[in-house]
Amino acid sequence: MQVMRAAVAGASGYAGGEILRLLLGHPEVEIGALTAGSSAGTPLGALHPHLTPLADRVIEETAVEVLAGHDVVFLALPHGHSAALAAQLPESVAVIDCGADFRLRDEQGWTTFYDTPYAGSWAYGLPELPVGGGGRQREALAGTSHIAVPGCYPTAVSLALAPGYAAGLLSGEDVVVVAASGTSGAGKSLKAHLLGAEVMGAMSPYGVGGGHRHTPEIEQNLSTASGPGAAGVRVSFTPTLAPMPRGILATCTARLLDAASGTDAAGIRDAWAMAYADEPFVHLLPEGQWPSTASVLGSNCVHVQVTLDERVGRVVAVAAIDNLTKGTAGAAVQCMNLALGLPETTGLPMAGVAP
Amino acid sequence: MQVMRAAVAGASGYAGGEILRLLLGHPEVEIGALTAGSSAGTPLGALHPHLTPLADRVIEETAVEVLAGHDVVFLALPHGHSAALAAQLPESVAVIDCGADFRLRDEQGWTTFYDTPYAGSWAYGLPELPVGGGGRQREALAGTSHIAVPGCYPTAVSLALAPGYAAGLLSGEDVVVVAASGTSGAGKSLKAHLLGAEVMGAMSPYGVGGGHRHTPEIEQNLSTASGPGAAGVRVSFTPTLAPMPRGILATCTARLLDAASGTDAAGIRDAWAMAYADEPFVHLLPEGQWPSTASVLGSNCVHVQVTLDERVGRVVAVAAIDNLTKGTAGAAVQCMNLALGLPETTGLPMAGVAP
Amino acid sequence: MQVMRAAVAGASGYAGGEILRLLLGHPEVEIGALTAGSSAGTPLGALHPHLTPLADRVIEETAVEVLAGHDVVFLALPHGHSAALAAQLPESVAVIDCGADFRLRDEQGWTTFYDTPYAGSWAYGLPELPVGGGGRQREALAGTSHIAVPGCYPTAVSLALAPGYAAGLLSGEDVVVVAASGTSGAGKSLKAHLLGAEVMGAMSPYGVGGGHRHTPEIEQNLSTASGPGAAGVRVSFTPTLAPMPRGILATCTARLLDAASGTDAAGIRDAWAMAYADEPFVHLLPEGQWPSTASVLGSNCVHVQVTLDERVGRVVAVAAIDNLTKGTAGAAVQCMNLALGLPETTGLPMAGVAP
Amino acid sequence: MQVMRAAVAGASGYAGGEILRLLLGHPEVEIGALTAGSSAGTPLGALHPHLTPLADRVIEETAVEVLAGHDVVFLALPHGHSAALAAQLPESVAVIDCGADFRLRDEQGWTTFYDTPYAGSWAYGLPELPVGGGGRQREALAGTSHIAVPGCYPTAVSLALAPGYAAGLLSGEDVVVVAASGTSGAGKSLKAHLLGAEVMGAMSPYGVGGGHRHTPEIEQNLSTASGPGAAGVRVSFTPTLAPMPRGILATCTARLLDAASGTDAAGIRDAWAMAYADEPFVHLLPEGQWPSTASVLGSNCVHVQVTLDERVGRVVAVAAIDNLTKGTAGAAVQCMNLALGLPETTGLPMAGVAP
Repeated sequence: MQVMRAAVAGASGYAGGEILRLLLGHPEVEIGALTAGSSAGTPLGALHPHLTPLADRVIEETAVEVLAGHDVVFLALPHGHSAALAAQLPESVAVIDCGADFRLRDEQGWTTFYDTPYAGSWAYGLPELPVGGGGRQREALAGTSHIAVPGCYPTAVSLALAPGYAAGLLSGEDVVVVAASGTSGAGKSLKAHLLGAEVMGAMSPYGVGGGHRHTPEIEQNLSTASGPGAAGVRVSFTPTLAPMPRGILATCTARLLDAASGTDAAGIRDAWAMAYADEPFVHLLPEGQWPSTASVLGSNCVHVQVTLDERVGRVVAVAAIDNLTKGTAGAAVQCMNLALGLPETTGLPMAGVAP
Repeated sequence: MQVMRAAVAGASGYAGGEILRLLLGHPEVEIGALTAGSSAGTPLGALHPHLTPLADRVIEETAVEVLAGHDVVFLALPHGHSAALAAQLPESVAVIDCGADFRLRDEQGWTTFYDTPYAGSWAYGLPELPVGGGGRQREALAGTSHIAVPGCYPTAVSLALAPGYAAGLLSGEDVVVVAASGTSGAGKSLKAHLLGAEVMGAMSPYGVGGGHRHTPEIEQNLSTASGPGAAGVRVSFTPTLAPMPRGILATCTARLLDAASGTDAAGIRDAWAMAYADEPFVHLLPEGQWPSTASVLGSNCVHVQVTLDERVGRVVAVAAIDNLTKGTAGAAVQCMNLALGLPETTGLPMAGVAP
Repeated sequence: MQVMRAAVAGASGYAGGEILRLLLGHPEVEIGALTAGSSAGTPLGALHPHLTPLADRVIEETAVEVLAGHDVVFLALPHGHSAALAAQLPESVAVIDCGADFRLRDEQGWTTFYDTPYAGSWAYGLPELPVGGGGRQREALAGTSHIAVPGCYPTAVSLALAPGYAAGLLSGEDVVVVAASGTSGAGKSLKAHLLGAEVMGAMSPYGVGGGHRHTPEIEQNLSTASGPGAAGVRVSFTPTLAPMPRGILATCTARLLDAASGTDAAGIRDAWAMAYADEPFVHLLPEGQWPSTASVLGSNCVHVQVTLDERVGRVVAVAAIDNLTKGTAGAAVQCMNLALGLPETTGLPMAGVAP
Repeated sequence: MQVMRAAVAGASGYAGGEILRLLLGHPEVEIGALTAGSSAGTPLGALHPHLTPLADRVIEETAVEVLAGHDVVFLALPHGHSAALAAQLPESVAVIDCGADFRLRDEQGWTTFYDTPYAGSWAYGLPELPVGGGGRQREALAGTSHIAVPGCYPTAVSLALAPGYAAGLLSGEDVVVVAASGTSGAGKSLKAHLLGAEVMGAMSPYGVGGGHRHTPEIEQNLSTASGPGAAGVRVSFTPTLAPMPRGILATCTARLLDAASGTDAAGIRDAWAMAYADEPFVHLLPEGQWPSTASVLGSNCVHVQVTLDERVGRVVAVAAIDNLTKGTAGAAVQCMNLALGLPETTGLPMAGVAP
């Protein structure tokens, strides 16, 4: 097979760096142009010293002519920048957007949470998502060349809860999610509260009360899983910052639908087991073992566990991912594999780096 | 005033060590006997090297005759050990129990979650808890000599939510709490999953699905806050282990009662502000500022913030405490102050150690 | 006794915040004006949320007229700013400078390492430093009103090694020091390598090869300990950044002088034990127990241990301090106590916050 | 090419787990038997939840007959266990020992530091080590079937300093090394000082004064680099435990030989650059950039930097490795590649997982 050439726009950030780490281990892809804004001209080794084999590569200015001659272009840019760039790239180039720009199908959801104009939506790159009525989101990705990579929290939350919606077990009325993220989730922004001295020892919430931009994306995904006939899903979502570099732990609870009130913990578990039996990256842990972010560090796997709290009638589902791998760059490479017609798991690590 | 003498049974553990740290800064108390089980005979400096002024003090065997001649005895023992010991101490000795033995008023709540016989209940040492119908739990502590120190999670969760129950705003039907704790909360037990290499970088839940022993204590407190006429409170409680030595962040959500459905975020905030206006240790943060565990490290303060998520009709209240200070040892010293007739805040740090 | 009033210039930084934390626990001092530069007008609670009792105090602009009416003024400013400010304050005001401006007695040492003009030197605030020929640096501080607080690394390194110089045991020719510091040592500067995601999991050196500004201060102190007749001291000093918020661990080795080549490990230990027998804040650990930064968190104590590596003829001395407490703000308060004629230990915590 | 089968004895520990992580990404090796002692019968997923693809594999009892039928056997056992096991394996089996048993060529060095009988020595598996007089240790590994994997500290220290010895620049008389290690270096032993709550925020030394077992191995390697004519090397080695799961940062200083006293920093740098120009895993950073453990997490690379402190006449060389990858398991796989005649870099990650 011919080797594909990939460019990364936004190579200076954490998402860009993680895409490059994964592409270094990808057998079918050659790393082409690396571009960024203010750090153009800098050797990559000064920005990402962990990418030893690329230390001498120099960042170029992000520009269409630099990106155009590649088989695939990854966009790892702040939201609002992808649309213009994508529009100028030749149609033959597959484009994988790690930003939020093309994730939401509902314009109002976008305008409520974002401050740039709505750009439309692309195929949504969460292949494992069960779709209400049968099938997976994967099917919507076959043959696409433009894919919107999901947000990190939506990936964890959606995969934690979706089997319950696809199986018609969960009420969408009163979902409560509290998720903890490593601080790389905030990117490289130079803010005092992200300094190491502030972060270590600190757990704190942010965007409380419905303010986080990932809320409509979570609701969109759980509605997809519920299927067209079902009621919409409403989520109380509280993200928290945890004292670790990477990882998301999403603790998600939803009430059993009245129609499913006879279901017991084993029945719940069965629904999740069936949903993920054939998914290479989603791993339902053995009963009694709960996910830990440490176990998926650097891996594209999602660890999931679920139980029923019978006292209160709530299903509790927990997922752990690496926010930079399955939560961003791993998903992006997985989407690239689908867009380029490669086996979906090519080049993606399934083992975490632990302890 | 005459100096009081205090003994600590269970001085080798984290709770015992923190009681000693606080007593070292207490102007009215002299540290008497330090006792423990298997570490009797060891100098304290080998177990708690941070307690420099006590480095040469030697741990004695826990025994009634060693403890008896003190004004106050702190029990920092595994659950099930306090009742027998307390029964043998002279009545003149104030006893502050940091264990779970005497916290629950409901025998069934005890037997569902604990494996030792029910020992009854003592005055519950959460002075700041608003009591439904008016007043505070503080009033139940005046003149008492035997006090049960609250659990760490119940302290954070109860103080986060109680104002809403005392003010008749919140439904008790479907409370959802997800809390993160530093690993000192698990004590000094030598278990592989508590090793530093496993803990750093790891967020993981435990006791999921209603299994944590603090659940009935949380429900008891919120029912106390609701008052006698109100319906009971049911909590879906998921504790998680966070990669930090100390601290609890409790993210708590409850639905507005139908009767309160017209209340807006400002109204909610007012209820919390009124509840804690005169509480020295409970600090409602300015609007928009959310609690962080790092800000209460080593302090007896509780930082609280609350808002209303209007989209989903849930109040979200968050509290941060130091699990070893306000969550255990600070509360114990506060209770001791009340039991001995000292000003409640004597010797208790209000500033955290940060960054 | 009349309560003294203290002002803090530079209250927005980590050193300023730690001074305030300590003053909150000081029985003889009342906190007066808090000043800073760009954050003037901000409530302290937004900058130092851990200082709960001061949350509503508002930062003022740093200016002579704001600071003048106090008994003592702490300067916690970037180097180069103290001299001008101090010159304008009334002579009756005690001034404690936490910056580097007045630490070095040797102008050349200053100009080699700093980029602002040499401002002279003040009494050097390391009371415990043994002085060659007998006595302590404490004696030079009695009755002074202007004191230069030592740097954090020099405090740890000097107290680790000085007994050996004061006792005529160590060669000054080839001292090697490697020290690890928590990231608060770098202050609140917004630099990418200080972000939490970069810092956690990272040990890295900086200023390698003699470039760190604390080198001449370390050499000055060890020369002071050696006494006037002795040869100068030359130090190879490598600081490293460690993944923790606070703390310095200084590992210091020096060769035995030929004249002392018969000394064994017990003889070495005796010299250290004698040097610190009466020092309240310097604690020589029991034989075999080595210092840990975790044991001095938030405390003004220094933990020291020493041994002789007979195979290679080097003494290895290790000291642990909290860089913000004994390393900066605790030392500043200790100096203030001396300047104001208070007992030296007043208001200073001797127990660390652990675990 | 035919796929090789590898067994891992000691699969339950951190070294065993890391070998498995790397073998999962190795294109020429199939994972065979996994054995251990007390955890035989346990599914691997309960011990190493990060090794998702092997979660259902069950640990077997360590026994010759289980291990014999493989092309290569990795021994990741406590010291003293490898000799007996290795002696019973068929000669056709390549054996890669991660323990200390066969590292030291000098029996006295062994008996001074270890409590089990001396077992002899195998080919020493540090291919990159420059050998005095020319060549590399790699040459001694060609065609060998039994290889002793170096210790983690010796790998970092030896690669940091060896170029200076091979080039005849450094004195062996008075080397001083201070190294920091992540806590996985202490293995999974259940000791109180390794608990997460104790480790976070803690830097502390251990084995101070020449007591660490890696000392003779470091000296052996630097003597190898010096070559047969040179004087021996003596090292003052102080290891410290750092609050991170993985990583070693070794700060190493040695005096210039008198004969090399005219060499300047550029000359030093040239020697290191030449030594590692063709080494795939040893990366001399650009001038001014210093190694960080975070940059080599999970990677088999070594980051090195060196300078000359002209004031004191000492070369300061710093190396960062991942103690479990290049420090143990990565080196083991690299040795396996050599033993099996595969390209040396096969299956070994060169990019770290950061941030």
